[in-house]
Parts: sequence; C-alpha cells; structure tokens
Amino acid sequence: MDSSRRPPLRVLLLGCGNVGRGLVRVLTVERDRYPGLEGLDIQIVGISTGTRGAVASDSGVDLVRALSELERGGHFSNQNPDRVESDSLQLARELDYDVLVELTPLSIEHRGEPAISHIRSALERSRHVVSANKGPFAYAYRDLMNLAVSRGVHLLHESTVMDGAPVLNLARHTLKGCRILALEGILNSTTNYVLSRMEEGLALQEAVELAQLQGFAEADPTLDLQGWDAAAKICVLANALMGADLNPSDVDRQGIERVTAEDLQDVDRRGDRIKLICRASRQDGGVSAKVAVEAVPRGHPLWSVSGTGNALRITTDLMAPIVVVQDNPGVKDTVYGVLGDLFTVTESFDLERKGSR
Amino acid sequence: MDSSRRPPLRVLLLGCGNVGRGLVRVLTVERDRYPGLEGLDIQIVGISTGTRGAVASDSGVDLVRALSELERGGHFSNQNPDRVESDSLQLARELDYDVLVELTPLSIEHRGEPAISHIRSALERSRHVVSANKGPFAYAYRDLMNLAVSRGVHLLHESTVMDGAPVLNLARHTLKGCRILALEGILNSTTNYVLSRMEEGLALQEAVELAQLQGFAEADPTLDLQGWDAAAKICVLANALMGADLNPSDVDRQGIERVTAEDLQDVDRRGDRIKLICRASRQDGGVSAKVAVEAVPRGHPLWSVSGTGNALRITTDLMAPIVVVQDNPGVKDTVYGVLGDLFTVTESFDLERKGSR
Repeated sequence: MDSSRRPPLRVLLLGCGNVGRGLVRVLTVERDRYPGLEGLDIQIVGISTGTRGAVASDSGVDLVRALSELERGGHFSNQNPDRVESDSLQLARELDYDVLVELTPLSIEHRGEPAISHIRSALERSRHVVSANKGPFAYAYRDLMNLAVSRGVHLLHESTVMDGAPVLNLARHTLKGCRILALEGILNSTTNYVLSRMEEGLALQEAVELAQLQGFAEADPTLDLQGWDAAAKICVLANALMGADLNPSDVDRQGIERVTAEDLQDVDRRGDRIKLICRASRQDGGVSAKVAVEAVPRGHPLWSVSGTGNALRITTDLMAPIVVVQDNPGVKDTVYGVLGDLFTVTESFDLERKGSR
Repeated sequence: MDSSRRPPLRVLLLGCGNVGRGLVRVLTVERDRYPGLEGLDIQIVGISTGTRGAVASDSGVDLVRALSELERGGHFSNQNPDRVESDSLQLARELDYDVLVELTPLSIEHRGEPAISHIRSALERSRHVVSANKGPFAYAYRDLMNLAVSRGVHLLHESTVMDGAPVLNLARHTLKGCRILALEGILNSTTNYVLSRMEEGLALQEAVELAQLQGFAEADPTLDLQGWDAAAKICVLANALMGADLNPSDVDRQGIERVTAEDLQDVDRRGDRIKLICRASRQDGGVSAKVAVEAVPRGHPLWSVSGTGNALRITTDLMAPIVVVQDNPGVKDTVYGVLGDLFTVTESFDLERKGSR
C-alpha cells in the first residue's frame, strides 16, 4: 500500500479529557483491535490541556507515557521529557502540525471561545482542523468555514452532533440533489438518559447523579439540563445542513429542569413519552430553531429512543423522511467521529500527493 | 457553472413501471419543484419496456409524449416517431448511451435474469450502470462488480435496498475505518404494512388486498409474503457491505404467510410486535444471512417501524450501532435513489472532463 511510504499525519491535540484519552488509547494500546484503522497513519506531535499541562515533540509525543501519566496522576509529570510550558493557543500558532484536533469543552458563557481562536489560528496557517467541540460551529460557523474554504483546508466536525454517527456526512455525501426542509431530533444524551430514568421512578436529581456516576454527565450538568447543549447542536446542524447562520441565543430554548414525575406519568397513561426535542425548519426565507420538552406519541420514530440514545429525523423535498438513530452511544463514539474525520484528511493528503507528483 | 457547457448524460431506461414513469415525471413536468436537481443534466435516448414497446432517439426521446402514451394507453403508440422494434438487450448492446438505468422487476425464478444480461452488456461496452433491480446484486454481485471495476465504470444500486434511503452510500462513504460486524433490518415494505394492518384486526388476505389497492404490493405478492424479496435485499447488503458472496437460496428464509391474528395478539399482550426481520452476521470467517418472523420487544429500535417503513441497524467494531429508518416511503423514494446515483455518475463525468483537458 502507498500509505506505508508517506509520512504520517502530524496531529496537535487540544484538550485531553475522556475523548482525548480515548483517542490516544485507540491509536496505541487498543489499535490492534480495529483492522479498519490500518490506513490511518498518525503521529501526535503535541497535546495541550487546560489544567493538566502540555507535551510536545517534533518526532512524536511518547503517547503511552502521556496516557499513563494522565490516568495515574491526572496531569503530565515534570519528569516527562516532552513536557512544555506553552498553552493551547501558542501551540496552535507555533507548532509544526498538519491537523489541529480541537477537543476542549463547549463554552456557552464565552460563546465558543477559546476554541474559536484555536481553530482560527490553525486555519490562518492553512492547517486542517477536526473538532469535537460544537461551540465554534454554533457561534462562528460562517466565519470559520469561509476561512477554511479560502485556505483550501478541511474543517471537519462530525462528532459535534450525535458523536460519531455520521449525520453531517450523511447529509453532505448521500443526499445529493435533495433540499433539507426540516430537522427534528433528540440530540442530548444526558437529558434523554435522565428522562428515561425518571420514567422508572427516579427523581430528576437522582437520575442526574446516576448519569454523573456513569461518567457521561458533566460535573456541572447545567448546560445539558437547561437545553444549552441541545441548542448548540441544533445550531450546528442548521448552519451546516440548511445554510443557516444561527447561534444558541437565537434558539427558542426550554430545558428539562421543571419536568416532574407527574408529567411523565400523565403522558405515559396515553402511551406517549416526554422527550427534549430539537427542531429546525425553514420559515419566511430563513431558518428557525427550537428546543422544547414535548410529548412524543407511541409509534413516532423518536418514541423508542431511550437512555443515552440520540436520533435525528431529516425531512427533504425528494424523499420520505430519514431517521438516523444512535443506540446507546458512549465516549468511544465521539472518538470514532474524530477518527472518521482524520481519515477524510488523510485521503485528501494522498490525493494531493498524487496530484503533485 | 461548468455543467451548462457540457453535453447531457445520455440515459437508456430499461423498464418503465411506477419507478420509471416517476423518474420521467421528475425529469420533466415536476422538475421545477426540486431546485437541488439543477446540476443534473440528463437526456433519455431510449426507453424499453417488457410489454409496452420501446422508443429511442439519438437526439433524446420526446418524454412528455412517451409519458402521456404510457399513462393513457398503457403502451407506446404506433404513431410515436420515436417508436422502435428493438428489445431491451438489443438496445443495451447497440444504442449510444452513457448510463444504463435498469428498472425491470426482480426475478427469483430466473435468478436475476434478464437484468443481469442487460447490465453485463452495458458494462462490457464500458458504460455506467444504475439499477433499482436488486436481482443482479443478489445473484451476480461479484461478477458484475469485478467487471465494472475492470472497465473503470460505475455500477450503482442505492435504490435496491430501502429505496432512496442512503444505506449503501452511508456505509461506503461515512463509516471509514469501521468494520461492519452485523446487519439487522426490516427491508420489505409490503410485509411490514400487512403485519401493521393485521395488528389492527385485518386478516392477512384483506391486508394484502389493501396494499395492492394502494399500489405498493405487486399483483402477485408471493415474493414478498414468502420472504424472497427480503432475502434478496439482505444478500445485496451482505454482498456490498460485508464482502459476502451470497444469493437468496443461501438465506435461511421464512415468510409471513402463516402468521395469524392470534400470534399478533399473543405478542401484543407483552408489548412486543411481530416483524419480518432480516439478519446478516459474520460466522466462521464467512457471512450468513437469515429472514425470519420475530417478536421485537418494545423499546427496540425496529419496534416502532410501522406501515411501509423500513429500517436497518448496522453494528460495527468502532461505534455504537447506527439505525437508519425510512418513514413510510413510496415510489418517489425509489426514484430518488436512482437520481442520487445519476448525480454520482454526473460528478465523475465532470471530474474526467476536467482531467482530460
């Protein structure tokens, strides 16, 4: 295979929480489990975290050591020879890399920053970007996408919505000729899990604690419970797939904080279920978006989405609606979304090299 | 746009039943409704049917006239100046076209023929092929695909399974690096519709007649009721997505003919539903496939698929299972599958032309 003769894709990783560590694990100790990853040749030349320090090495970071330090001590050790004192923005601006992988958490308070600045720095240097952080695409979609196009580089973000489930790629690569008229989905795992547990009799607070124990709800679950995460995701989808220019403040938003056991029992008597539903639709020449607690009737494709499951219903002009359901995803799914995007970058590298020969 | 300056894609249409006429309608009288079709420049240079005659014209068939003749008289008129006496195989071998569009019905009795011969004739002439007929891909997948690859042409068949819902394209273009471990789906609309109506109290025969009245069940529904159509579809998927080499005779197959109202009531008491489920899985280094009547538990992603709905659950090594649901599709969806494939051919034509300049 040709891939054995080309240099690896040099990656700078910003953020190394669950997803970052999962990615490093798949690329190192778990690699042999996945034969399909054979064609993916990646070298991580830098990892920067918010509070755990940073490592960088022109010949590739010692990933097994880095992973073990993060998992044992919670931060990179001072003895690590790859340890550097730079912060994320500095590394994005100065390190020699091919792809920036942005994995820092969503910030509503700072309207997508500092991730927007990280990504802009990489794009301005004509470097590709893969992001699992939805903030930049909920707050600065047009700006960043225009910049990427003008520099001729990839700006990919499949894992920002429904983790690795290929909703963005599906709409882009497989709905040729279709015009997307409306989107409707369950896009936040934490609230869907909490509502499912509440149906079984738990109080909201108990269900949230269970989600935290299982590692998928944040220590501060406010962004999930108040519908901000869902609002950011429907913005990403509307911006990417319907040509909208929305940010989360434009979304008519409701959370699940006030849903009670009685509400759930009331709708259950009719066979319905309460869900936090995201919607985007075309109206008066523009696109509007909404996040609301709704009673979903039995038989509706979103009715059976339980636990951490996510689902998106896509209505187009040329076809019956398509629903993509992700069955109980976890951290591995976000990792896969990033890997899939890295594959796309790798393939375009191969094409470029063929072209320039 | 560049597309305005290139000659149109010359298409030979074999078969002109519901799907063929739907395609002609979308390309003519309904065209203005679908702005996304702008880039698709198609000229139909021949239409051949089993019992309705054939028309051909080097400068493009008069489609409005052809459509009106088929819809009024049931066959091409002898006065039609485009009328020719050739049959489908002759046209496939002799007419000057870029793409063969194969829309003849599935034949289990003739193991995919005569569609296999139509397609082989086109491929041997290095012409692209788009097919909505699943027979060739259930009976001769490897042969035909190898031939297409050796001639450097497209052999596309998105609409053979789940109509236009992009399950083949999804797996090919958006699951990079993943290995598909198993497939599970509801793939036959007629049986799913019949089971849904039987749940409401209709007898099997009444439900079949209703499906025929509504135009989606065949006059002879045997292939659907006995599970042959479903078996052909799971073969197409296993062959295309899991590297299998199966044909419908290899499938452990069961139909719905013996399902009774009592069976449905029994499972309904537990909250389950009876469905005709197709499965493919990896076993002992190979792939095996099965079609069986199963009780699907409430909460399972296939549970809520009602009426003519179809769904496919894809299990991979790298991700949580993905389910694609098609919500009550009709003839238009098969038409869209063909259009999507024609887009793919058009795009590669544009690339070739760019390359040869």
